[in-house]
Amino acid sequence: MRLNTRFFDLEVQGLEAILNEEDARDLLVRPGDRLMLRGDGESVVAVAEVTRGMVSPGEVGVVGGAELPREVDVKPVSRPRSVDYIRKKMDGFKLERGEVKAIIEDVSLNRLSRIETTAFVCSSYMRDMDYDEVQWMVEAMVESGERIEFEEGPIVDKHSIGGVPGNKITLLVVPIVASAGLTIPKTSSRAITGAAGTADVMEVLAPVGFGVDDIKRIATEVGGTIAWGGATSIAPADDNIIEIEYPLSLDPRPQLLASVLSKKMAVGADKVVIDLPVGSGTKLENEDDAPTLAMDFIQLGRRMGMDVQCVTSYGASPVGRAVGPVLEAREALRVLEGGEHPRSLVEKSCEVAGVLLEMAGIAVNGRGSNSAEEALRSGAALDKLRDIIRAQGGDPEVSSEELEPGEHRWAAEAEKGGYVTSLDNRQIVGVARAAGAPRDSGAGLLLHKKVGDEVDAGESVVTIFSESEVKLEEARRLFKTKPPYRLKGMVLERFEESGRL
Amino acid sequence: MRLNTRFFDLEVQGLEAILNEEDARDLLVRPGDRLMLRGDGESVVAVAEVTRGMVSPGEVGVVGGAELPREVDVKPVSRPRSVDYIRKKMDGFKLERGEVKAIIEDVSLNRLSRIETTAFVCSSYMRDMDYDEVQWMVEAMVESGERIEFEEGPIVDKHSIGGVPGNKITLLVVPIVASAGLTIPKTSSRAITGAAGTADVMEVLAPVGFGVDDIKRIATEVGGTIAWGGATSIAPADDNIIEIEYPLSLDPRPQLLASVLSKKMAVGADKVVIDLPVGSGTKLENEDDAPTLAMDFIQLGRRMGMDVQCVTSYGASPVGRAVGPVLEAREALRVLEGGEHPRSLVEKSCEVAGVLLEMAGIAVNGRGSNSAEEALRSGAALDKLRDIIRAQGGDPEVSSEELEPGEHRWAAEAEKGGYVTSLDNRQIVGVARAAGAPRDSGAGLLLHKKVGDEVDAGESVVTIFSESEVKLEEARRLFKTKPPYRLKGMVLERFEESGRL
Repeated sequence: MRLNTRFFDLEVQGLEAILNEEDARDLLVRPGDRLMLRGDGESVVAVAEVTRGMVSPGEVGVVGGAELPREVDVKPVSRPRSVDYIRKKMDGFKLERGEVKAIIEDVSLNRLSRIETTAFVCSSYMRDMDYDEVQWMVEAMVESGERIEFEEGPIVDKHSIGGVPGNKITLLVVPIVASAGLTIPKTSSRAITGAAGTADVMEVLAPVGFGVDDIKRIATEVGGTIAWGGATSIAPADDNIIEIEYPLSLDPRPQLLASVLSKKMAVGADKVVIDLPVGSGTKLENEDDAPTLAMDFIQLGRRMGMDVQCVTSYGASPVGRAVGPVLEAREALRVLEGGEHPRSLVEKSCEVAGVLLEMAGIAVNGRGSNSAEEALRSGAALDKLRDIIRAQGGDPEVSSEELEPGEHRWAAEAEKGGYVTSLDNRQIVGVARAAGAPRDSGAGLLLHKKVGDEVDAGESVVTIFSESEVKLEEARRLFKTKPPYRLKGMVLERFEESGRL
Repeated sequence: MRLNTRFFDLEVQGLEAILNEEDARDLLVRPGDRLMLRGDGESVVAVAEVTRGMVSPGEVGVVGGAELPREVDVKPVSRPRSVDYIRKKMDGFKLERGEVKAIIEDVSLNRLSRIETTAFVCSSYMRDMDYDEVQWMVEAMVESGERIEFEEGPIVDKHSIGGVPGNKITLLVVPIVASAGLTIPKTSSRAITGAAGTADVMEVLAPVGFGVDDIKRIATEVGGTIAWGGATSIAPADDNIIEIEYPLSLDPRPQLLASVLSKKMAVGADKVVIDLPVGSGTKLENEDDAPTLAMDFIQLGRRMGMDVQCVTSYGASPVGRAVGPVLEAREALRVLEGGEHPRSLVEKSCEVAGVLLEMAGIAVNGRGSNSAEEALRSGAALDKLRDIIRAQGGDPEVSSEELEPGEHRWAAEAEKGGYVTSLDNRQIVGVARAAGAPRDSGAGLLLHKKVGDEVDAGESVVTIFSESEVKLEEARRLFKTKPPYRLKGMVLERFEESGRL
């Protein structure tokens, strides 16, 4: 059937072709069927949608971006073989290498509809995959995207499986290990549901949007990058999979493993440390699950020639005292400058950096953390961060003093004294987001009191920062409704308009 | 955020609100999040999509049909609780009554996105449901749609789980049992992937698109209907579920059970017979699975106060000799007229009708089939079908002689003799669809030889009918490429242009 093309600039999973219901009936096509659109030597396969009025009879709406002429020949074709392989996984069978590869390739190239990709993600969650299948998935993800190959090694990398607010350790770990002469081409994400991703925090200091060529050049030149992974096309299948996982709050083990390992493989990492935060609100609510996940990462790494070590860390409350892009950048910079800073942040950063120093043979086992602390103390890590900031196009002379969080502020004060027994991550993130984070970089929270700290009546426990009075008010209201602090096991529910609690 | 509405008439699952990426960023909204759109006293919740160009900043695209003013207030809201229940099912837990109800209600009201409904369907497939859960699903499906309540019983009904071409027995069963004084408000489907659904076949004789009020009126008046279920709003969740199952070729046991039983419950059926075709190409490829499925239907029926019996039937090749709307209507009518007809069709129809006659106490056990044959022989069933045709607005004087299939015809002849050992359903359907069925009602196949029949060299085995020369040619080409017949276990692969095989 000859139809006139009409283009719709909507982001969908799987290229879609919208037919008027009359044409769909003539072609015996139902929503979900595949159509081949062909014209002027171009041809694409799209998933059929059916409309009463969005396109007229004689037209085909093309959604998702395709190069096609004004008129195309449209005919039904069979669905991709990968849909059969997804069915096979749903039926509980182990997939072959070629089957995993076909699925990942089709996910990467946007050939599957949302229904089909959802079925894949759900089957991975409910049927799980063995090491073979995950390895094949990692390999297929790497092959389907951009890669970096460095001329010289070793290449090291770190990753945190996330979920903990205030986790700005990458801004310390990268300069520490790069100052020891290692190459660490780190890519990070922006916050999706959090208050600030590492890319959001680094962006306070320098641009972060680089393609793989720039990442390679900068990391070769100064030893490290702190870039935003979203500007590259590394493991593109992962983005389409995350689009499905997000609304279902799902993170199937095979996809978690493949997501992390494919990114590390793609940048050519030889030695990798993976941080597994444990505790309420993290991906590892039950600490007992950590050894199994760690072993999965290590074994899979070994299969692919990558030396992987894992560390577990306390994740039930924020890392350091600052939450939000500017506040976190300031806190990290202050540590590097040798200024006042939370001890827990330094410890975690040095432990993680120390593992890499030991893995690379730069520190003897058991002394990595000390070497890392020495890099902080000597100023070598600060100099290295300035190199990275310069190489990424930021101002290398920046100091923590100059970093100003939002001007609208509100401090919550304790109504009565006690000890802080818990600090709820989810509520802290909620308040930071209400205040404008991560979009407003100056928005966030500064925690004056952390778990175990003693609080006197009238003492300030937290300050909320915002770039707008309205958002500050919203954040304050949220803080009062669901206070993230518990003192001596009691929920502090009573607040006065003045801000006392 | 105040945005101007723009409406898109696209059929989607879950109302969608399309934001420009700039507005989405300001609202901290990602694809898959929920948005509340409110204005002029109207408010709806929609699933967010994000576009670069389909709508401009300041606009919100509304897809899926909603009554909203030109300007609406847009703000993020949390996702429905039913998504948590779907997660619970994915994690392998049994759902509570209220949880099942919430999911089905949200599916019915189009409140879930495709990703979410897919996760539900996949979880039902991979985790299965127990009788409690299926019963609650049936009840929720019935409650979420239209119902028929008859003043007088008993109300009987039949259903076939389908997959067999040529299965026109409803056109015989309904008039047989209605002629015995029973009420049978039968709704049927159109062909989705097949050559002719019962609604397509009945439409050759009379209109089939009736709402529940008309179905009740007609069934009360003449004892039965043969209507198209798609014109009613009985168990609307089922349509949204089928939209997910279709592209995945998935038919989870809980949904299969609930789909059938909810339709029977909704029309108030007391006594139901369910036909389970078994054999290659049906839903029960393995005959050993039939007793379990039968028991599921029976037990669930009992729980809901419905008397259910099941019959298995041979489904590996077509029922009767005709495939395609006009050809099937003609064959059924010929049986009722007492003309020449395939014995297998009469037997199957009378067995199924006989079960209902026995269940209703009209025939003694073991004699139902004979009573049904008597209704055929006496002409009572033919008179009853004429009543139904008249009540549905067709011509009651129609005779099989007047029903003319497509004028373009081609007969395949056997090149050498032998016995027919198999007849492939899928290939038969493929050829019928290529010839134009079900859209062109005159298109289809007439099988002159069936399994077990002897064929002489040069004898015609099948005739293909079409309303167009082009489609006939396509059907003929398909028939030659993949012949549906096997003689003596040999694939007949050699054809001559003359049409010989």
